[in-house]
Amino acid sequence: MIDSSTDRYAVGDPALVLLSGGMDSATCLWWVRAHSSAPVHTVSIDYGQRHCVELDFARQLSQLVGATSHRQIQVDLSSVGGSPLTDPNLEVPAATDNRQVATVVPFRNLLFVTLAAGVAEVEDIHDLFIAPVRDDQAAYRDCRREFYDSLQSTLGLGASEEAAFRIHTPLIQYTKKDVVRKGLELGVPYELTHTCYEGRRPACGVCDACSERLAAFAAHDMDDPIDYENRENL
Amino acid sequence: MIDSSTDRYAVGDPALVLLSGGMDSATCLWWVRAHSSAPVHTVSIDYGQRHCVELDFARQLSQLVGATSHRQIQVDLSSVGGSPLTDPNLEVPAATDNRQVATVVPFRNLLFVTLAAGVAEVEDIHDLFIAPVRDDQAAYRDCRREFYDSLQSTLGLGASEEAAFRIHTPLIQYTKKDVVRKGLELGVPYELTHTCYEGRRPACGVCDACSERLAAFAAHDMDDPIDYENRENL
Repeated sequence: MIDSSTDRYAVGDPALVLLSGGMDSATCLWWVRAHSSAPVHTVSIDYGQRHCVELDFARQLSQLVGATSHRQIQVDLSSVGGSPLTDPNLEVPAATDNRQVATVVPFRNLLFVTLAAGVAEVEDIHDLFIAPVRDDQAAYRDCRREFYDSLQSTLGLGASEEAAFRIHTPLIQYTKKDVVRKGLELGVPYELTHTCYEGRRPACGVCDACSERLAAFAAHDMDDPIDYENRENL
Repeated sequence: MIDSSTDRYAVGDPALVLLSGGMDSATCLWWVRAHSSAPVHTVSIDYGQRHCVELDFARQLSQLVGATSHRQIQVDLSSVGGSPLTDPNLEVPAATDNRQVATVVPFRNLLFVTLAAGVAEVEDIHDLFIAPVRDDQAAYRDCRREFYDSLQSTLGLGASEEAAFRIHTPLIQYTKKDVVRKGLELGVPYELTHTCYEGRRPACGVCDACSERLAAFAAHDMDDPIDYENRENL
């Protein structure tokens, strides 16, 4: 379940991991750490997300994994609009609405990789890691490998000096259930990850993101270590 | 001198112009206005540039041209570092240093187009305009057409829904001198554009950007309508 791009990660090269503070990117970070003892840098993006609490967890996870550097880059997307994740006037759809597509922030992953690539260039890093998973690919076209292959070429052409950038997506074939299995194996501290789109701690337990997370733990007969509002009713 | 991508701009389609407030993007905006009476939207990026005064001019230019919307999007690149344009502790090289490359902000144009593409998606626009010119291509690899061709494919793959985005670069074959000639023809109000990398008004007249601007006007035996410090000594 390792994608072709990840095969090309030469253990020993410094890595940069895009870390949201959610389960997938935390698992990706622990995956990188398990595969290499080279320096690992992390980048988190504060894009005005409703669930900005995830940024605190990203910082804690970076410290815990022994990251060489952790950067938080701020982008104000409020003037762009269009997504309930960045616009407090729009409602986050519940899981039952089957409208995850309404939470799309246009070109979010392109933006994240672009900002990470800027850091990579300054730090002389050529291996970027991002953690799209299989379950995201229906709603989010920028979670597909063909998108990252194209972006990888674009980065090579747009870099200040001729250089190859490799975008690794080690979890791209994983379902959420696979992510949890792999993460438990790697010892990811899931109590320090955040998922709820509503940004609540305890988590709401009903938004699309919470529902997926709960189902992934339930599939392993495991209790999710984070707290939920009204857990007894979930 | 119209690039192949611009040939594909169907007059009548709404356009989005990346507008820095400098001479090139102002000329591009007037070029679009001259070619089409369709709605024109503008996007400016506040990336902590030393010469942020250009953003005020971008707003004025947008009003003057009758833009349907003007957005200013803020990105804080201070934690990325590496360029004197965003780091007040680094010095802007003088023109004579022949080190324009030191002013590179990594993946700046990729970042700008990505943010503009987010706006384009929200506004249902498919034609993006950016104004790299021929003189920039030696120092800035992300001013080359092959970079924009690749990025255009990446945008198509990463868009929320399957859609073609066209990135137009109408000035890509123009020298700075050509830009001024075309702009004077189109009636661009160059007194409302900003160029000085030091961010000074009156402009410093000695930084690389000022030097190029002065030379472009001089080549047409024209006086640059903006003020310079110590003009008599330039």
